[in-house]
Amino acid sequence: MSGVWGNKIKYSIFGESHGKSIGIIIDGLPSGIDLDLEEIDREMRRRAPGKNKLTTARNEKDEFEIQSGYFNGKTTGTPLCIMIKNSDQHSRDYEKTKNLLRPAHADYTGFIKYSGFNDYRGGGHFSGRLTAPIVFAGAVAKQILREKGIIIGSHIKSIGSIEEDYFDDINIKEELLNRLANKEFPTMDEEKALKMKDEILKCKEKMDSIGGVVEGAILNLPPGIGSPFFNSVESTISSLLFSIPAVKGVEFGAGFNISKMKGSEANDEFYIEDGNIKTYTNNNGGILGGITNGMPIVFRVAFKPTPSIAKEQKTVELVSKENTTIKIQGRHDPCIVQRAVPIVEAAAAIGILELVLS
Amino acid sequence: MSGVWGNKIKYSIFGESHGKSIGIIIDGLPSGIDLDLEEIDREMRRRAPGKNKLTTARNEKDEFEIQSGYFNGKTTGTPLCIMIKNSDQHSRDYEKTKNLLRPAHADYTGFIKYSGFNDYRGGGHFSGRLTAPIVFAGAVAKQILREKGIIIGSHIKSIGSIEEDYFDDINIKEELLNRLANKEFPTMDEEKALKMKDEILKCKEKMDSIGGVVEGAILNLPPGIGSPFFNSVESTISSLLFSIPAVKGVEFGAGFNISKMKGSEANDEFYIEDGNIKTYTNNNGGILGGITNGMPIVFRVAFKPTPSIAKEQKTVELVSKENTTIKIQGRHDPCIVQRAVPIVEAAAAIGILELVLS
Amino acid sequence: MSGVWGNKIKYSIFGESHGKSIGIIIDGLPSGIDLDLEEIDREMRRRAPGKNKLTTARNEKDEFEIQSGYFNGKTTGTPLCIMIKNSDQHSRDYEKTKNLLRPAHADYTGFIKYSGFNDYRGGGHFSGRLTAPIVFAGAVAKQILREKGIIIGSHIKSIGSIEEDYFDDINIKEELLNRLANKEFPTMDEEKALKMKDEILKCKEKMDSIGGVVEGAILNLPPGIGSPFFNSVESTISSLLFSIPAVKGVEFGAGFNISKMKGSEANDEFYIEDGNIKTYTNNNGGILGGITNGMPIVFRVAFKPTPSIAKEQKTVELVSKENTTIKIQGRHDPCIVQRAVPIVEAAAAIGILELVLS
Amino acid sequence: MSGVWGNKIKYSIFGESHGKSIGIIIDGLPSGIDLDLEEIDREMRRRAPGKNKLTTARNEKDEFEIQSGYFNGKTTGTPLCIMIKNSDQHSRDYEKTKNLLRPAHADYTGFIKYSGFNDYRGGGHFSGRLTAPIVFAGAVAKQILREKGIIIGSHIKSIGSIEEDYFDDINIKEELLNRLANKEFPTMDEEKALKMKDEILKCKEKMDSIGGVVEGAILNLPPGIGSPFFNSVESTISSLLFSIPAVKGVEFGAGFNISKMKGSEANDEFYIEDGNIKTYTNNNGGILGGITNGMPIVFRVAFKPTPSIAKEQKTVELVSKENTTIKIQGRHDPCIVQRAVPIVEAAAAIGILELVLS
Repeated sequence: MSGVWGNKIKYSIFGESHGKSIGIIIDGLPSGIDLDLEEIDREMRRRAPGKNKLTTARNEKDEFEIQSGYFNGKTTGTPLCIMIKNSDQHSRDYEKTKNLLRPAHADYTGFIKYSGFNDYRGGGHFSGRLTAPIVFAGAVAKQILREKGIIIGSHIKSIGSIEEDYFDDINIKEELLNRLANKEFPTMDEEKALKMKDEILKCKEKMDSIGGVVEGAILNLPPGIGSPFFNSVESTISSLLFSIPAVKGVEFGAGFNISKMKGSEANDEFYIEDGNIKTYTNNNGGILGGITNGMPIVFRVAFKPTPSIAKEQKTVELVSKENTTIKIQGRHDPCIVQRAVPIVEAAAAIGILELVLS
Repeated sequence: MSGVWGNKIKYSIFGESHGKSIGIIIDGLPSGIDLDLEEIDREMRRRAPGKNKLTTARNEKDEFEIQSGYFNGKTTGTPLCIMIKNSDQHSRDYEKTKNLLRPAHADYTGFIKYSGFNDYRGGGHFSGRLTAPIVFAGAVAKQILREKGIIIGSHIKSIGSIEEDYFDDINIKEELLNRLANKEFPTMDEEKALKMKDEILKCKEKMDSIGGVVEGAILNLPPGIGSPFFNSVESTISSLLFSIPAVKGVEFGAGFNISKMKGSEANDEFYIEDGNIKTYTNNNGGILGGITNGMPIVFRVAFKPTPSIAKEQKTVELVSKENTTIKIQGRHDPCIVQRAVPIVEAAAAIGILELVLS
Repeated sequence: MSGVWGNKIKYSIFGESHGKSIGIIIDGLPSGIDLDLEEIDREMRRRAPGKNKLTTARNEKDEFEIQSGYFNGKTTGTPLCIMIKNSDQHSRDYEKTKNLLRPAHADYTGFIKYSGFNDYRGGGHFSGRLTAPIVFAGAVAKQILREKGIIIGSHIKSIGSIEEDYFDDINIKEELLNRLANKEFPTMDEEKALKMKDEILKCKEKMDSIGGVVEGAILNLPPGIGSPFFNSVESTISSLLFSIPAVKGVEFGAGFNISKMKGSEANDEFYIEDGNIKTYTNNNGGILGGITNGMPIVFRVAFKPTPSIAKEQKTVELVSKENTTIKIQGRHDPCIVQRAVPIVEAAAAIGILELVLS
Repeated sequence: MSGVWGNKIKYSIFGESHGKSIGIIIDGLPSGIDLDLEEIDREMRRRAPGKNKLTTARNEKDEFEIQSGYFNGKTTGTPLCIMIKNSDQHSRDYEKTKNLLRPAHADYTGFIKYSGFNDYRGGGHFSGRLTAPIVFAGAVAKQILREKGIIIGSHIKSIGSIEEDYFDDINIKEELLNRLANKEFPTMDEEKALKMKDEILKCKEKMDSIGGVVEGAILNLPPGIGSPFFNSVESTISSLLFSIPAVKGVEFGAGFNISKMKGSEANDEFYIEDGNIKTYTNNNGGILGGITNGMPIVFRVAFKPTPSIAKEQKTVELVSKENTTIKIQGRHDPCIVQRAVPIVEAAAAIGILELVLS
């Protein structure tokens, strides 16, 4: 069972890449919220391919249609359902290789889990396309959080081995996050962006792919949000981040680097200024004992390179049970990190909203 | 709300470090399971301090008392509750510094979340002591998994900057995991162990602390366990790993390193041998599309250095709202990684059992 | 938050009577199930109005469209979503009386809960129309149960004060339940049916409405299904039965009558026959300690009379806050019991399937 | 899995009648609540036997010990656990009849569900004793509700066929509920009480037992609490009422009687007085569309007669699989309705608190 998350607000996703439609139900939203549909649209277009030469040539229409829960421009408080019709489906792209297991894809695992009955076309329910409804839900969550002054943003921290700076975890400015949100390739450093894009194009030419890391931040969270143990901020947000296909690592604050520090170095010492309690450093990423302390939440998400590469790969034929090879056809992104940025923000927004409203 | 996790089996924890007792209820266990109480005892002693000079001098008795759910040597199938009485509590250690916020601890965040009503003594509900019931539950989970041939183990990957090798993610042997489980300081390499322990002692002398990374593995999981999206293996296990105090990073397979790889390098190509489908490499850590593929699950958990250090630190006095300093008294581990090893295994066991039984 | 139920299988409903569509997502179905779409269609038509003079003249099309989770004639095991487009909506019927609180309807309570933002047209999310997706889900559940030999059926026990016999709770035959399922007005006794229909028509002429009781049965459940306390068979099924609009009472076995019995009379004594343990009587309705004992589950559901009557009624004008009267226009069923029969069966099916699969 | 209920606040029960202890964890309580422990004690003593000749001679000590979640006289906001030690256990009472199925008890169903591994002594986990922790939790819930002005009370509506009046569902006074709470045998009419007690004693002499109905009420709930469909007030409260052992029927408002009414008779017409919207009648029991409308919530719970009677009954011997008879020894209440009153109130309190806080 894959598709239901949440306690205060419950999210239920559905859909296969080549089925009739994909979508999501959001149950538990407060009533009376003005949804800025144009802004939601912009969020979803940050994810959609077909925009530039870095991404696929496919032309996915991610136009969502609201089915319920929205009346006279505001949320009703009843379950809000959106549907995104599927189109532009070259089903024949997938028929030939139906029984060949694409390495690093979920062909094999999906086949076993669903006993061979899953819709394999275009990745079926495993398709990255299913992140579109998540971005919608995240966009709604972001708007509710924004009303409370809470801002979420991110940037591409690295593509392959090309890295740019971390966020200044003490002092992330809202304007920076806004500027990043408006960039097609969101980095803080323009030169690094060029190098990263270069790297992606090189991979494309070599019929290969490349991964990367997205760094996210949540600003202006009041202290006291979250719980120790099972409902910690880290548990809640990571469970959503790891729901995103292709994610293999999540860290908060100084993350894995904190394990190399001494306590005297890692501990974030407190001070008070104008009645506000802050810390000089923020290696804990704004979270202590699973609960926010008022400092910016910072986290990083590691994405593996796109599994679909045109190079010939060794594999197994599922029916004949023979070793063989595969050359994946079709049009695939050499790097999904750029498209993953709004999905990372959506996941973080959904997670932190759950805790804020609890 | 912190203490309830799970769907098929529900785990509810309770307790404060200086309250009457701490414990856990496990609801949903199959009936008729022979619990090896001695083995559970051994698991819990892996966690308990007072054993050697690396750990604290405190003498916590972690003797659990079964209250229900266990009759004539077997689980009844009804809720199983254990209680661990608290003792050896030097409450006066904490009274003096009640209003001083210990850096990197949950004093501040707990105070805000619980509006000042939390039991602050010894960390209260935030105390690392609350991991004892989790280790109990994990020990039970491990026994049920073992009956199905599924084995969980781990080793200390690094202490500070001193690292030992990764597990061989293609070919981890059960005997290796068993040997590690019987070591007080579980590493694969004895010399590295000596260097690591040395590092810890140095920190102790300098009144400082140090962090580290634990690497875990789950063997013999059949393919097909888990789900895409919200109930992926990564989501499920990470939500429990991030429940452990002091964890700031979780990664699976090649983890953050996978983001630096090309697809041709990262993709785990399939082959079939004796009717079993395997992969030549295992950068995906045994998980594809959130579902197991039959290869070993490998993951890493990053622990921050113990927050309690004797060095003087800047902080805030909560009542007077003034900047001041604190020198933490009492007896504290310079490194908790060694003690965290069984907790990491417990978390992984609880998580994977949930998915296996779903 | 209204729309999510379940643990093993999760059901999420959405929709307003006059929104774009209504529907449901069923998440957690086993894969590979042959869904008999024609049978599901028949179930849904048992509920749909416009069939005879007893019911409304409205012509609701309850044609469902499967969006996901179904491929090549079988369930995929991924979330199954259906959508039912709304049509035939006379929105103007509702505009005039928008601020008049219809007695016994959810106009007032929905207005308060959703702070006035709910879609009031046609009852919005409160519309009995939302039971159509529930009947779909129940039809799917029934098919899965039928595969296991478990049969669910029901009959109209009473309309107003006109009653027919109870089921023979010791010996309900599958053929009886099948015959009832094929009747438009399902009673065991034809004469009683005529009297009941007569009663309904009389009410219609008097611009009034009437209630009734549906009695349901579940056959061939093995013993051992359910749990004591929170997940008892009664708790699980009643929580779904009371989800049906207009339900005000639920009882199992001898129900409220059992409270008048002595123990010597009420106790169902055991006997064994051909290796099967049975009871001579079945006042406990097949459930002991919240768990099935192998005897038929019998239960009753009380429906209040349709709130919408044409007679003038006293009420309040919501905006002006004045006492006034209302005469409800439009086309309304004088009795919904006949239509509720498949909804009762659906609710029971969903509930018992959850427990069977747990 | 029986023991976990709730969303906003989670309740986990544990315990067997003859195990070490029974208890409950309440997770999600707000912090800083002054718990009146004496009042909780009084609630629990309303349930405890050994008080008069109507009830059993057993002397259960239901003294609860708080293990966590309570500090300096107030809730901490962390999980609150109480334990009630078991004592006064005549385990030998049960050894002789271990394999005889007591009619109307859960011996058989528990045996099947738990594959014979359940603790059968004294009913084990099925023991009515497990309602003691529920009364504790209900007492806490009642205090929180009281702070918000919401009052819960009840009376014995009937014992066998001896009935007293219903509550005046329009105009239930708080003083009446308080007076009833202080009565050992809570009825509104003293003469009826005498007749009822007489009936109970007659049954006791005849070695038989008798059932009854408890009617409950919830006052001062604001309108707007609850949801349509799955989280309706009726669904939520009934799921808890049906968790109470021996309950076979639950109804709200006019309940089953409403099914006999016409719409013109059943509909509760609205009026406004001093700015408050009320209804002239209250056949809907204060709930419309699953949501409160501000009128008193009234409901009824039907209890079957105590299964344990001394008369000889037919049964089956589980091991030899033979038809035989049983004469139940030991000390048993001829009627549990009197003791069930605080349990009914506890269930209603827990249920409505969940909705109030959602």
